Amino acid sequence: MNVNRRLQIGIIGSTDCADEMMDIAERTGALVAAKGAILINGGRAGVMEAASRGAKAAGGLTVGIIPGASKEESNPYTDVVIVTDMGHARNAIIARSADSIIAIAGGLGTLSEIALALKMGKPVVTLASPWKISGSVEANSPEAAVQLALGSRGDERANTFN
Amino acid sequence: MNVNRRLQIGIIGSTDCADEMMDIAERTGALVAAKGAILINGGRAGVMEAASRGAKAAGGLTVGIIPGASKEESNPYTDVVIVTDMGHARNAIIARSADSIIAIAGGLGTLSEIALALKMGKPVVTLASPWKISGSVEANSPEAAVQLALGSRGDERANTFN
Amino acid sequence: MNVNRRLQIGIIGSTDCADEMMDIAERTGALVAAKGAILINGGRAGVMEAASRGAKAAGGLTVGIIPGASKEESNPYTDVVIVTDMGHARNAIIARSADSIIAIAGGLGTLSEIALALKMGKPVVTLASPWKISGSVEANSPEAAVQLALGSRGDERANTFN
Amino acid sequence: MNVNRRLQIGIIGSTDCADEMMDIAERTGALVAAKGAILINGGRAGVMEAASRGAKAAGGLTVGIIPGASKEESNPYTDVVIVTDMGHARNAIIARSADSIIAIAGGLGTLSEIALALKMGKPVVTLASPWKISGSVEANSPEAAVQLALGSRGDERANTFN
Repeated sequence: MNVNRRLQIGIIGSTDCADEMMDIAERTGALVAAKGAILINGGRAGVMEAASRGAKAAGGLTVGIIPGASKEESNPYTDVVIVTDMGHARNAIIARSADSIIAIAGGLGTLSEIALALKMGKPVVTLASPWKISGSVEANSPEAAVQLALGSRGDERANTFN
Repeated sequence: MNVNRRLQIGIIGSTDCADEMMDIAERTGALVAAKGAILINGGRAGVMEAASRGAKAAGGLTVGIIPGASKEESNPYTDVVIVTDMGHARNAIIARSADSIIAIAGGLGTLSEIALALKMGKPVVTLASPWKISGSVEANSPEAAVQLALGSRGDERANTFN
Repeated sequence: MNVNRRLQIGIIGSTDCADEMMDIAERTGALVAAKGAILINGGRAGVMEAASRGAKAAGGLTVGIIPGASKEESNPYTDVVIVTDMGHARNAIIARSADSIIAIAGGLGTLSEIALALKMGKPVVTLASPWKISGSVEANSPEAAVQLALGSRGDERANTFN
Repeated sequence: MNVNRRLQIGIIGSTDCADEMMDIAERTGALVAAKGAILINGGRAGVMEAASRGAKAAGGLTVGIIPGASKEESNPYTDVVIVTDMGHARNAIIARSADSIIAIAGGLGTLSEIALALKMGKPVVTLASPWKISGSVEANSPEAAVQLALGSRGDERANTFN
């Protein structure tokens, strides 16, 4: 049997950020959805909510892996809520579950996730990021970020197993 | 803004089980999907795979929260793969993420999940289960199980927040 | 190099329980310490606190693996506090870290831990337990429980590696 | 009742590193132990093993929070082995459990831990580190690192609760 799994792309960033970053996140989320990939993030406010809003407007599927103990903590643009009750340890689950990561702006939580994703061998693309970590790739637009994130794993679309 | 989140129903059970249990799991998964709920399980073989196969055939959305470190470990009927790399600790995430749980047959892993779900105050319905734990409700058919699992949380469908 | 690691024995049970159970837990903790084993538990009140109090009075070393986010949540008889911030998922860490488990009385949380420990192949001894799970062994006194818990792993004391 | 808990100091770093870093780690571990603090780390080889060897030689207590599923994966200088079976997610438990962190050299795993610890508000001291993250403090010797790590939390030693 052929399994053509959809790609799972993580968009990570802070709960509070500038309006300009929210716009970038929303556009990036929309592009991920338009490419047919599932959007994975931390399910909360800020960059996460903006990315999910963009993905939903583009007809996509959104997954929020939240740190707290209740579904209600997730933003309203989250289709599937994974309730970890594991605080920051959930960052490792986001990195593991994503085929590649796009980090938009972001603080220390985002940095921990960039480092974990790189450690796990996942492609990491940054956008307007204060963090320049060796191994990540910098993009200068949502379009470039999504192309880099999907392109670097585009060959996985052809993966099959029985 | 009104948020009408879809219910998330967990169907849990063993990786290896009798053919009869596989049939029951498949029918139960199909019924959960037919009711519009998202199916959540451990993403592996046996009861999990059968339930997801049933849900997919009925047009549903399936989520597998897997114990290992690679998406490829999930069964082919899983739409969204949450890769925890957390072994048995992922059982707690399944219990937290589900609005209610249906346990089909099952061994010690299933028992740990029944206990955790009850501890968290989640409704637990059992089907052909060797475990009779106070607080869980026994169903004698997939139809009854799904009615009990969704009915006991049916009021949540109307939940809204801003 | 010879490594003669100390055994790590888990004593699990509820935060609230009858005075009689507290006495049993305290005596059991003291016996574990007297045998030279490290006591591992959930670091909270009730059976956990009583067991650790007993172990400390007998000169033992106590480890509390707590569900919350702050060291201060542990009981005062805990020498080493492992702060998981992972809620019930920390039960899996207790089961994994213990060479064997003694379950005293206990509710649903204790049941989940018994099931996980048995699933992981760890010896489980119960004392005054409402749970009779196939694979666990019932003891009728703290002395018998500790002998069963340590005896069943006594050969590991001789384990060495380079 | 007065509880004068011992400080728990994390020393983090890579499994493979230059001999010079091993020496630094060993001296730092010895100093932490000499101050009466418990040493917490990831329980594996390299910086972790060297720090624990130093701490043991100085009569200290060492705790290894390991990513795998078996006690035997920890280095032989680990007194208490916390077996998480949670891969990189265990980094968050180390950061949560430590009152302060000393990061020696280190790669991406170490970076993720520095970021998490800072995010949690824990003091972070770096030694020979490639990572200069705002909020962390750079030390130029093991002595300075330990003084900074303990000094910045020295007031906690007086904490009491009932």
